Amino acid sequence: MPVTLIAGGVGGARMALALHEALPPGELTVIGNVGDDCEHWGLSISPDLDTVLYTLTGRIDPINGWGVAEDTHNLMETAISLGEEDWFILGDKDLALHVARTRRLRAGEALSAITADVATRWGCATKLLPATNDRQRTWIATDTEELPFQEWLVHRRAADTVTGVRFEGVPEAQPAPGVLEAIASADRIVLAPSNPFVSLDPILAVDGVRAAVCARRADTVAVSPVIAGKAIKGPIVGMLESMGHRADAIGVARYLAPLAGTYVLDAQDADLAADLAELQMAALCVPTLMADPAVRQGLAAAVLA
Amino acid sequence: MPVTLIAGGVGGARMALALHEALPPGELTVIGNVGDDCEHWGLSISPDLDTVLYTLTGRIDPINGWGVAEDTHNLMETAISLGEEDWFILGDKDLALHVARTRRLRAGEALSAITADVATRWGCATKLLPATNDRQRTWIATDTEELPFQEWLVHRRAADTVTGVRFEGVPEAQPAPGVLEAIASADRIVLAPSNPFVSLDPILAVDGVRAAVCARRADTVAVSPVIAGKAIKGPIVGMLESMGHRADAIGVARYLAPLAGTYVLDAQDADLAADLAELQMAALCVPTLMADPAVRQGLAAAVLA
Repeated sequence: MPVTLIAGGVGGARMALALHEALPPGELTVIGNVGDDCEHWGLSISPDLDTVLYTLTGRIDPINGWGVAEDTHNLMETAISLGEEDWFILGDKDLALHVARTRRLRAGEALSAITADVATRWGCATKLLPATNDRQRTWIATDTEELPFQEWLVHRRAADTVTGVRFEGVPEAQPAPGVLEAIASADRIVLAPSNPFVSLDPILAVDGVRAAVCARRADTVAVSPVIAGKAIKGPIVGMLESMGHRADAIGVARYLAPLAGTYVLDAQDADLAADLAELQMAALCVPTLMADPAVRQGLAAAVLA
Repeated sequence: MPVTLIAGGVGGARMALALHEALPPGELTVIGNVGDDCEHWGLSISPDLDTVLYTLTGRIDPINGWGVAEDTHNLMETAISLGEEDWFILGDKDLALHVARTRRLRAGEALSAITADVATRWGCATKLLPATNDRQRTWIATDTEELPFQEWLVHRRAADTVTGVRFEGVPEAQPAPGVLEAIASADRIVLAPSNPFVSLDPILAVDGVRAAVCARRADTVAVSPVIAGKAIKGPIVGMLESMGHRADAIGVARYLAPLAGTYVLDAQDADLAADLAELQMAALCVPTLMADPAVRQGLAAAVLA
């Protein structure tokens, strides 16, 4: 069955792996977030797309959940000696992808074409589409100022309280080729256990994408990125709080209720299932901590059932 | 005494090191060749400037004479898996300089400013000036076609017979700040044991540089890049032959006679000294194989005497 996953961040990549492993080759399409994209050292970096690529092709650093396993940092160390910025960690193997992408973008290739070619070269049967080929950038409003996403997340370690999120390039950004089709034609649409504000929303903010998912609400399953009031990874709980949402799996469910008819709670949150009825969301309760391969399999099976 | 070296290639870098070691800090200015510069993987690479920088700061790979010692090639290996070109070897530490330079050039900095900053950051007291900040590219005419320099030298391993050399960007290219002043004000000007056609000529072809050196002929010393009819390194002997020159140290001396009043022959070529008289060049005969530190010292002493 054709399945489309809307995915950002590490949770998105892990969900992509779960579905990639569960489905026959070629049946999964992943629509990836490009709001996190940045220019660093003059290179065009697409962290969320890369995390999916690295995860699906076995390259991912299993400790960090981003970057390439057993990478070296010789370029970075030397670049720092040349006065280049030191806060965004880039391994040598990882940098190859950024160098190649930057060259190809400057030569006029679309991000979607480059991404598809990399996936093919690395033998990845899952189709990975950037949400848009247009420039889209996530900005984080804090108490004191607005920061580019990576500046807020990586450079300042997500320490500043978030008061809002803005997507530069919206509403002009158009869906990349195949994005709307993948949503319209899938038997199942999955919203990954990603941060809804900075990982799912930038994808949904691309022209026509939110409406396309809403139109498929009955076939859309969202997976909670919060377990027992704690984030699996990342700054989501603080953002739920500071932006006035309930800081648990139900806070995310309310936010996603217009999009998804089914919501996956972690088994630890089974007692929250009752709260989904008023959101007109069906509840699924299964273990969701995907670092464990058996859990990953079980979650994929539940989502696809 | 202020000394200015005109230098390209590995021979230029080794002569730079000899003079750098022999002179008090700050007294040496090296004018480097940028005709070899290229764009590879979308990065701006200045091989000759970098070889001087690496050599003077102890980073040079002593085996190849170019690149960084004990470098890794993780980026390159991954880039090749992404379909990027595989014939120009770039180590990870070396790439840091190319990434930083490319970023800074695109941000509008002059190559001379970037080069000076790198030298300062790496504690190099010798001043290194690119011949020009303007775009200059060496093209090699062969029997069958004209090739960009690195394509001819590296990709085709200098196997094609050279029938001519052309410098794209000339005569428009203007000397970088300080170049003409360094030639006019030095007590001694040295032409490194570099290939005269592809390492010295591109520097001399920059507007006003050849005339500036000719005006200082009495204070200019050229060092032969040919010993006993063999190149110390590189394709010079074949080029001398195919372009109709005598294929030995005197062939080079004739070519450089308008520029240099003194010519250093290797001690092995002492019998050729007589041939310099008709060129109105004074002869110096000393060992010139600079891989040996004692020889390097002796050569520097002879050139500066």
